[in-house]
Amino acid sequence: MTSRGLFIGRFQPFHNGHLWAIKEILKREDEIIIGIGSAQDSYSLENPLTAGERIEIIREVLKSIGALDRGIIVPIPDINENLAWPGRVIELTPRFDRVYSGNELVLMLFEKFGIKTIRLKHIDRDKYQGRIIRERILRGEPWEHLVPSSIIPLLKKFSFEERIRRLVGKR
Amino acid sequence: MTSRGLFIGRFQPFHNGHLWAIKEILKREDEIIIGIGSAQDSYSLENPLTAGERIEIIREVLKSIGALDRGIIVPIPDINENLAWPGRVIELTPRFDRVYSGNELVLMLFEKFGIKTIRLKHIDRDKYQGRIIRERILRGEPWEHLVPSSIIPLLKKFSFEERIRRLVGKR
Amino acid sequence: MTSRGLFIGRFQPFHNGHLWAIKEILKREDEIIIGIGSAQDSYSLENPLTAGERIEIIREVLKSIGALDRGIIVPIPDINENLAWPGRVIELTPRFDRVYSGNELVLMLFEKFGIKTIRLKHIDRDKYQGRIIRERILRGEPWEHLVPSSIIPLLKKFSFEERIRRLVGKR
Amino acid sequence: MTSRGLFIGRFQPFHNGHLWAIKEILKREDEIIIGIGSAQDSYSLENPLTAGERIEIIREVLKSIGALDRGIIVPIPDINENLAWPGRVIELTPRFDRVYSGNELVLMLFEKFGIKTIRLKHIDRDKYQGRIIRERILRGEPWEHLVPSSIIPLLKKFSFEERIRRLVGKR
Amino acid sequence: MTSRGLFIGRFQPFHNGHLWAIKEILKREDEIIIGIGSAQDSYSLENPLTAGERIEIIREVLKSIGALDRGIIVPIPDINENLAWPGRVIELTPRFDRVYSGNELVLMLFEKFGIKTIRLKHIDRDKYQGRIIRERILRGEPWEHLVPSSIIPLLKKFSFEERIRRLVGKR
Amino acid sequence: MTSRGLFIGRFQPFHNGHLWAIKEILKREDEIIIGIGSAQDSYSLENPLTAGERIEIIREVLKSIGALDRGIIVPIPDINENLAWPGRVIELTPRFDRVYSGNELVLMLFEKFGIKTIRLKHIDRDKYQGRIIRERILRGEPWEHLVPSSIIPLLKKFSFEERIRRLVGKR
Repeated sequence: MTSRGLFIGRFQPFHNGHLWAIKEILKREDEIIIGIGSAQDSYSLENPLTAGERIEIIREVLKSIGALDRGIIVPIPDINENLAWPGRVIELTPRFDRVYSGNELVLMLFEKFGIKTIRLKHIDRDKYQGRIIRERILRGEPWEHLVPSSIIPLLKKFSFEERIRRLVGKR
Repeated sequence: MTSRGLFIGRFQPFHNGHLWAIKEILKREDEIIIGIGSAQDSYSLENPLTAGERIEIIREVLKSIGALDRGIIVPIPDINENLAWPGRVIELTPRFDRVYSGNELVLMLFEKFGIKTIRLKHIDRDKYQGRIIRERILRGEPWEHLVPSSIIPLLKKFSFEERIRRLVGKR
Repeated sequence: MTSRGLFIGRFQPFHNGHLWAIKEILKREDEIIIGIGSAQDSYSLENPLTAGERIEIIREVLKSIGALDRGIIVPIPDINENLAWPGRVIELTPRFDRVYSGNELVLMLFEKFGIKTIRLKHIDRDKYQGRIIRERILRGEPWEHLVPSSIIPLLKKFSFEERIRRLVGKR
Repeated sequence: MTSRGLFIGRFQPFHNGHLWAIKEILKREDEIIIGIGSAQDSYSLENPLTAGERIEIIREVLKSIGALDRGIIVPIPDINENLAWPGRVIELTPRFDRVYSGNELVLMLFEKFGIKTIRLKHIDRDKYQGRIIRERILRGEPWEHLVPSSIIPLLKKFSFEERIRRLVGKR
Repeated sequence: MTSRGLFIGRFQPFHNGHLWAIKEILKREDEIIIGIGSAQDSYSLENPLTAGERIEIIREVLKSIGALDRGIIVPIPDINENLAWPGRVIELTPRFDRVYSGNELVLMLFEKFGIKTIRLKHIDRDKYQGRIIRERILRGEPWEHLVPSSIIPLLKKFSFEERIRRLVGKR
Repeated sequence: MTSRGLFIGRFQPFHNGHLWAIKEILKREDEIIIGIGSAQDSYSLENPLTAGERIEIIREVLKSIGALDRGIIVPIPDINENLAWPGRVIELTPRFDRVYSGNELVLMLFEKFGIKTIRLKHIDRDKYQGRIIRERILRGEPWEHLVPSSIIPLLKKFSFEERIRRLVGKR
């Protein structure tokens, strides 16, 4: 049977840390389910991109590594009730064998329901974080080297930089 | 360790079928957790009594069988998302070892999360159902023999009969 | 630019009418976004399958017609507020050019927001409806000829028939 | 101090029974608060009109009886939890002295919170009901005589008849 | 046809900046729809006043400038999903032609749905903000000159100052 | 008739200040209803324990003071709408005569609905607060003397310390 690993992120924006994790998981599993967390949120400082835009970006990344047919992308809206969340994830995603995460809360919640989890070590977590990239944009610092170059055109098309700046009232 | 069984009902109203189930479970377990389902609903034809009124009634029943200290009553509001519901139940209740139920959906949902379930055979299910009692009240037929006599005074105090009749517009 | 059509269904289960619609849309558009409606519901008579199971089934269908790379599958939980629903759909899906639907409500709601809609004529709507298939299963009548043969193994694996029967209390 | 009566309806559509009630209340109170119930629902068979359309219609009625400045119109979305609903109504509306209603549930809920209620006798309730008007439209029977003539142009502008027919799939 | 502009604020409390905006809009449009944002929140530091109290205050302001019959006041509860919010606003309000706002998020969201927006320049935004007034009250500084004098009696009646102080635990 | 006082807390964790309050109330009332606030939240820094775990802990405390049969424990999920909250509390709890609280918001909200409230003076509020205990744990400072000794074994069993540390990413 096809083996599948689940990986959940908010991808605001997708960055090189995410890319590393996806490659790692694809080494070990036949397929990867990529859950887009906080899918209902967008046009906010924490979550500027919509889930639909994030789907387009992740498809582009998968294409760039020749893995479009091995990735299943699923937006997962928040349920705001931690112990109800694993059930929602299970409901929205195809069957999976293991959850890969670097987030302790995610690990704890799936453990609580007896699901196999694998802790991902983050490479260079100080650099590769969505929040850091969003703050760099607000300060006018370079950030493009922190994300896969294949997605830069899409981020431009979605006015990623401008959207973040407008959200804090800078036009 | 104290063994515990979980039993969930809507108790609209509590009837002799519920009483039988609780006695059965108390024969096998040290303690019973009694979950009050659809706890957020009340003053409706399906759920005339509030969760608070149902707590008072179930406490009265437990007293009448000398088991007040062996029962833990927990109201459980609906979450309207079946696969998220077992997580909500686990979150709201103390640890339990087994779920007892005569409801196939409840059994299926807990099975899905790997929780031990025990199917309760209903005694005389044609007679002992909340819906049947509510319909008898609307038709003006006797119903008091279908519920434990110990709770009749509370149902009177809560104007159970009148409330149901007003809800269908009969005053 | 890649042209995209949006098609939303509940797929309970996926049937030959859905297959026909998808093929029609793929004749006219580069890519199809397949929205899975009522994604939060499952293990109910109206919606027995989870969104995750429906994703697996639709991927199987797309593979069988050689269109896995032209389809983008997106689960869409209900928002229970009709005029807020098109916004949710837009938020969860990649950009699309046209909405294809045979459902008047869907057409009306997208029209209200100025989005281009195309009315799909249903072929043999008396036969190809999820509700009709679910009712056939409950009556023990044959139904497999109404769905693509490629998905029968998955429906078996998901105990589709048994789940529906248990939900009405038949075991 | 200005005396105020609260009157809540769904107004799908506004009909002569509503008009009678509003006139009655304006005889007894300085001002009337007109709550639009189920304000979040629209484009459904139960609630075809949006709350915004209902506001326009009720303003037209108030103008036609010279009472625009004595009416305060407030849309009230459902909260789906009966005992939480009076609190939501109190929160969304200016202070009121009395609730006028012909609906037993509304009367019971406000009584429960110690608020003064006055039961409205419905005139000719068999004729003046939104449901009856919506059914007449679906059967192609005349219905315009059941609503104030002043609002017919607005109902036309909102395609009231056509919307209802499309919702049941008749085009 | 009557032209209408939409203006949305939280009005915690209504201040001179709001008054200026309303007057500006009334110069350009026949009628103004005043949406009360975060209508479901009250008795919080961010939103001390209920929507009902805010309705009373805004009616008083409209009376004071002789425009009661040109203003339509509509409470709008939050939907906590940015792309679903314009749909909710459209649903709850009568038809409007243009959205006037000084808030970039509001402008972006309506633009996204192709609705005409007009950016309001705030006069003296450092002075005229609800947050600044609420902070002045907590520090015991004068604030009454920042709001229209016509509404001071209502703010007194609603114990506006005391409510804010109690919310931070100062009695 | 049995007199009852209502006391609501989050109990994250239960501490000596809560114990003092419960003893005070039991001096004045026949029974106490102990409402567990924010019952839907758990595995968060603000609310590490589930409602079910909190029920177990409070039962242990009641046993330790010989009052298990005089306490009724009711989890109360948040409703996120302040004026709807008293209605939810009334719905979920058995009838009560008075609300005891040291929280100004709780007192204000029940006063608004005409319910009798009694302000509890907190003893040594600087020491006895859940937040202070959670911060002590994160700083590795002793905290066990701030909670009833009878509940320490349960907090150990629930990995209270470790859960809090994992939630901030310390393992």
